Amino acid sequence: MASTVEKRRKAAIAKLLELREKTDIPDALLITSLHNIRYLTGFTGSNASLLLGTDGSANFFTDPRYTLQAGSQVDCEVTIAKGPLTKSVLKAIGKARHQRVAIEPENLTVGALEALRKELPARAELVPVSGVVEQLRMVKDETELAAIRKSVGINSEALEAALKHMKPGMTETELAAEIDYRSRRLGADGPAFDTIVASGERSALPHAHPGPTLIGSGILLIDMGAFVDAYASDMTRMVHIGKPGRRFRKTYKAVLEAQLAAIDSVRAGVKTSKVDRAARRVLKGHDLDERFTHSTGHGLGLEIHERPRIGQKDSTVLEAGMAITIEPGVYIEGWGGIRIEDTVVVTEKGCEVLTPTSKDLRVI
Amino acid sequence: MASTVEKRRKAAIAKLLELREKTDIPDALLITSLHNIRYLTGFTGSNASLLLGTDGSANFFTDPRYTLQAGSQVDCEVTIAKGPLTKSVLKAIGKARHQRVAIEPENLTVGALEALRKELPARAELVPVSGVVEQLRMVKDETELAAIRKSVGINSEALEAALKHMKPGMTETELAAEIDYRSRRLGADGPAFDTIVASGERSALPHAHPGPTLIGSGILLIDMGAFVDAYASDMTRMVHIGKPGRRFRKTYKAVLEAQLAAIDSVRAGVKTSKVDRAARRVLKGHDLDERFTHSTGHGLGLEIHERPRIGQKDSTVLEAGMAITIEPGVYIEGWGGIRIEDTVVVTEKGCEVLTPTSKDLRVI
Repeated sequence: MASTVEKRRKAAIAKLLELREKTDIPDALLITSLHNIRYLTGFTGSNASLLLGTDGSANFFTDPRYTLQAGSQVDCEVTIAKGPLTKSVLKAIGKARHQRVAIEPENLTVGALEALRKELPARAELVPVSGVVEQLRMVKDETELAAIRKSVGINSEALEAALKHMKPGMTETELAAEIDYRSRRLGADGPAFDTIVASGERSALPHAHPGPTLIGSGILLIDMGAFVDAYASDMTRMVHIGKPGRRFRKTYKAVLEAQLAAIDSVRAGVKTSKVDRAARRVLKGHDLDERFTHSTGHGLGLEIHERPRIGQKDSTVLEAGMAITIEPGVYIEGWGGIRIEDTVVVTEKGCEVLTPTSKDLRVI
Repeated sequence: MASTVEKRRKAAIAKLLELREKTDIPDALLITSLHNIRYLTGFTGSNASLLLGTDGSANFFTDPRYTLQAGSQVDCEVTIAKGPLTKSVLKAIGKARHQRVAIEPENLTVGALEALRKELPARAELVPVSGVVEQLRMVKDETELAAIRKSVGINSEALEAALKHMKPGMTETELAAEIDYRSRRLGADGPAFDTIVASGERSALPHAHPGPTLIGSGILLIDMGAFVDAYASDMTRMVHIGKPGRRFRKTYKAVLEAQLAAIDSVRAGVKTSKVDRAARRVLKGHDLDERFTHSTGHGLGLEIHERPRIGQKDSTVLEAGMAITIEPGVYIEGWGGIRIEDTVVVTEKGCEVLTPTSKDLRVI
């Protein structure tokens, strides 16, 4: 039976054949993104290349530090390069007589390309081809969805555990540290991004870094994610310390309404821009659309930000199995910000909201 | 008075002028490494470019998310790009009539280079020039050394705090989480790399990831670092749970002897390969040199691994103010590994060992 990673490699090779049918390019794809390599082989080390041939071949390259690890993780042909991987990769290109080798322009530095070009076999050429594997990665398979579910679950548990340990006089930084610690203790490999804990007016900065600010009464925005079995989760929740005033309750309600409308619009076959519009339209009704300064969400998986983007200008058509975030927010300088975010999976008929944490306004 | 970052920019421009004197290249340098940009401007955001001209100009580019932040952090000319930074950068290149613009081949993707090339002004060309800023960054200024000292101090305190919370039945993962948590609570921004906690035979893997392994009696290797004020620290210490046997004591002594010999050989004017040799020679005397499978150390600063490398083939001449690690180790499959690592600063007459943690064998 074909392994999960073997199936993925076959799908990637099918993509290459499809491309070659249309454009006469490529004979092979040299993969240099470690995320793409992990996706296609299961390898978790920090140095590797993978050469997929339209002839069905899959050659994996790493260095001697990973001899044992590659032996146990990788089920295609493994080459342990004694010098730089480049030399071994070029040798394999020569041996297979690949002529048009696609490279990943977003995942290869100019320096690395130069090193490859310098000793390229006579008749071979390197051609940039974007996003072959990234596009496959948009739609998650069962193994991936299981990991994302687990990640989302631990992330939500970690929030509860951390809030239990919240004390008066705590700073943003301390609460962020508490969140990361609880998440690790619950089984996360680490945070999927720098945990955001923003209190008071600072919540108006969508990318606030936690600082030495004391968490006082008022708005508290928490945006957190975990990596579990290499897969990301992402959630934003609002807490109000002390009784919230009218403006906060009203704005919270508007953002929640926008978030639910966006979730409601998610379905296989729908364009991502339509989901974005659903959130924006609700906020417009509350005269808050100009305060919504980012896109509605993004794909996530082996990376915290993956395709597709759920934004005004994106035209990706949603497919069942895509894992995305839905996270509208409004930001008012000098007052504060409110964002509500879930991780959801697209289905044929709608979507499944994975995040179990309640969106009822939490007052502490 | 010139700010610290202004002095650094002047030093970078002096380097460019020196280069142009010799090779007629370049008129300007386009900096795309965020670490280099932070070094030269103080900017801490996640999207920026910096164009340094040999005419003395310094143009900084970022997007609207960072308007306020750039305003307060950056003291050279700031452009807030409405679309991709590329367009604004190209406009500035055109306006300044730069013809030969150096790019950083290790810090620019093939895709980003293509985007630049596509709309490059008529007479301009892009030329890869490696390591201009990285070379400057090797020698730390007072501001940097203060941050590294602080980072090293917090890192050592975090080890003590975490060991106090070590309990029987704890796993590697749990101790690693405890270390990261204590470090954050003491003021670190986060770990400088994935904390290594490797017990028993697993300590023989130089890059072991902490796992669900229970920390039992025997060898325990802890390799940890913090980022404090953006600067890294790095330390490895060995703990023995229960009374160590003869082989462990003997091997520990040999590694410590090698580490001290390497430290002893550090001085401005000495080649890094000589420092590496000092460690290797001692281990050879104990018949352990073949078990020492990596280099003796590396520079550190804004990144955990920076130039120079302290290895057999490196020929960098040490200069006062370089911050490096000294970390020989021996790894015996099926038995375990021992590594001892300090962060040190090169001085004219020798070096200052920053790491305050004792290297006496610690038995718990």
